[in-house]
Amino acid sequence: MPDQSYPTACLLVIGNEVLSGRTQDANIKYLATRLGQIGIPLREVRVIPDVAETIVGTVNEVRARFAHVFTTGGIGPTHDDITSECIAAAFGVPWQKHPEAWARLDRHYKPGEFNAARQRMATLPRGAELIDNPVSIAPGFTIGNVHVFAGVPRIMQAMFERLAPSLVGGPPVIARAVHADGLPEGRIAAGLSAIQARYPDLDVGSYPYYRPAANGIAIVAKGADAAEAEAAIAAVTALMLELGGTPVQGEPPA
Amino acid sequence: MPDQSYPTACLLVIGNEVLSGRTQDANIKYLATRLGQIGIPLREVRVIPDVAETIVGTVNEVRARFAHVFTTGGIGPTHDDITSECIAAAFGVPWQKHPEAWARLDRHYKPGEFNAARQRMATLPRGAELIDNPVSIAPGFTIGNVHVFAGVPRIMQAMFERLAPSLVGGPPVIARAVHADGLPEGRIAAGLSAIQARYPDLDVGSYPYYRPAANGIAIVAKGADAAEAEAAIAAVTALMLELGGTPVQGEPPA
Repeated sequence: MPDQSYPTACLLVIGNEVLSGRTQDANIKYLATRLGQIGIPLREVRVIPDVAETIVGTVNEVRARFAHVFTTGGIGPTHDDITSECIAAAFGVPWQKHPEAWARLDRHYKPGEFNAARQRMATLPRGAELIDNPVSIAPGFTIGNVHVFAGVPRIMQAMFERLAPSLVGGPPVIARAVHADGLPEGRIAAGLSAIQARYPDLDVGSYPYYRPAANGIAIVAKGADAAEAEAAIAAVTALMLELGGTPVQGEPPA
Repeated sequence: MPDQSYPTACLLVIGNEVLSGRTQDANIKYLATRLGQIGIPLREVRVIPDVAETIVGTVNEVRARFAHVFTTGGIGPTHDDITSECIAAAFGVPWQKHPEAWARLDRHYKPGEFNAARQRMATLPRGAELIDNPVSIAPGFTIGNVHVFAGVPRIMQAMFERLAPSLVGGPPVIARAVHADGLPEGRIAAGLSAIQARYPDLDVGSYPYYRPAANGIAIVAKGADAAEAEAAIAAVTALMLELGGTPVQGEPPA
């Protein structure tokens, strides 16, 4: 699928807990899906550790290459939460008290509980614009083309939905699918390749599934043009029938 | 946690289906966990699309920076499976018929069914060493410090376990944990930071949880030395008690 008409996105998942296997990431799929709907396809994800040099270097590399960079993780009050100060370093701006974030957190905590650790969550790169956090108050922020979210999925999703109306994408990415139990990839491959060649503006993917109920393949056609995606899937359906398969429209049941 | 004593790893998840949100990745957590056990900590993950230039460039970048590179996805028989030829291009070697892989697949398929698409799965970078695939025959392979696996989790895991005995790691990474319902991160942060400072060889992480039963925080200490990790968790336990919390050893129930 040619990307020229789309602003593209990169996601940085910041956190040792994903790299150690402690935590199953749940943010990639959510952001990938929502960004596709908005027409800002996710083109790369990096999972990186809580190491300042790595965060700063990676942010500077990817913010130059993608229209939008999203980060998750590392904006809480503890010593391993270093995303915010690293973003300031990446942009070469001071990391300083943000009056509005400070006021929100000061109102939120009981007297005496807005301590030094929590004050770090109101300390942001100069020029940052807040992203509301309706779950736990401490805000995310945008600076330049970098959008900084919490790592906890419920909070990340709430922040994303607050930001989403301001994101301007290309046409939504349309996906159409067909699947067939029992049909091996190796039998459909040649015909599928010919269909991909006929629809160069689509991205035609082949995904084997292994389910307790049945094994099979799902073919997905994605692109900006729904009619084209439907025509490609119709061609795949005919190909499956020709090979003796039993095509069923849509993705296989989960 | 200083990395000097450990060979490090990078994982490349190759596939449009993860970047589009269609597929929830299940390979990162498995590999992260197993590599930690073997003493080859995973230090970076990249999810990249089925685009030849991106795959070749990324493989060459990361194989120079990490002791081991693992890839998942893109080694099947369809047109979107381009990992194998891209690895050949990255290493500057021909992509050619591998006699042993060819023989295995030729034996596996019924006469006439080892077609051109399936023959691509027996075409490998020159010099590749096979990784057995006990699930669906078509092998993975190692070339240099790059290990190439299928993307389907069941097959990826089987391939990894075939390869694992040949991987030489540092000391296994030991993790000890304690958690407390109802204790906010912002209250423990200062004391926790002091404990991290006392144990510079450990990686002390703080992870809030939000469960239907309760919210709270889990503190995890990781490193090569079990006694040290246990001492740090004992200090965290004392800190939690001091703050009026009810510490429970280990991770919170799922």
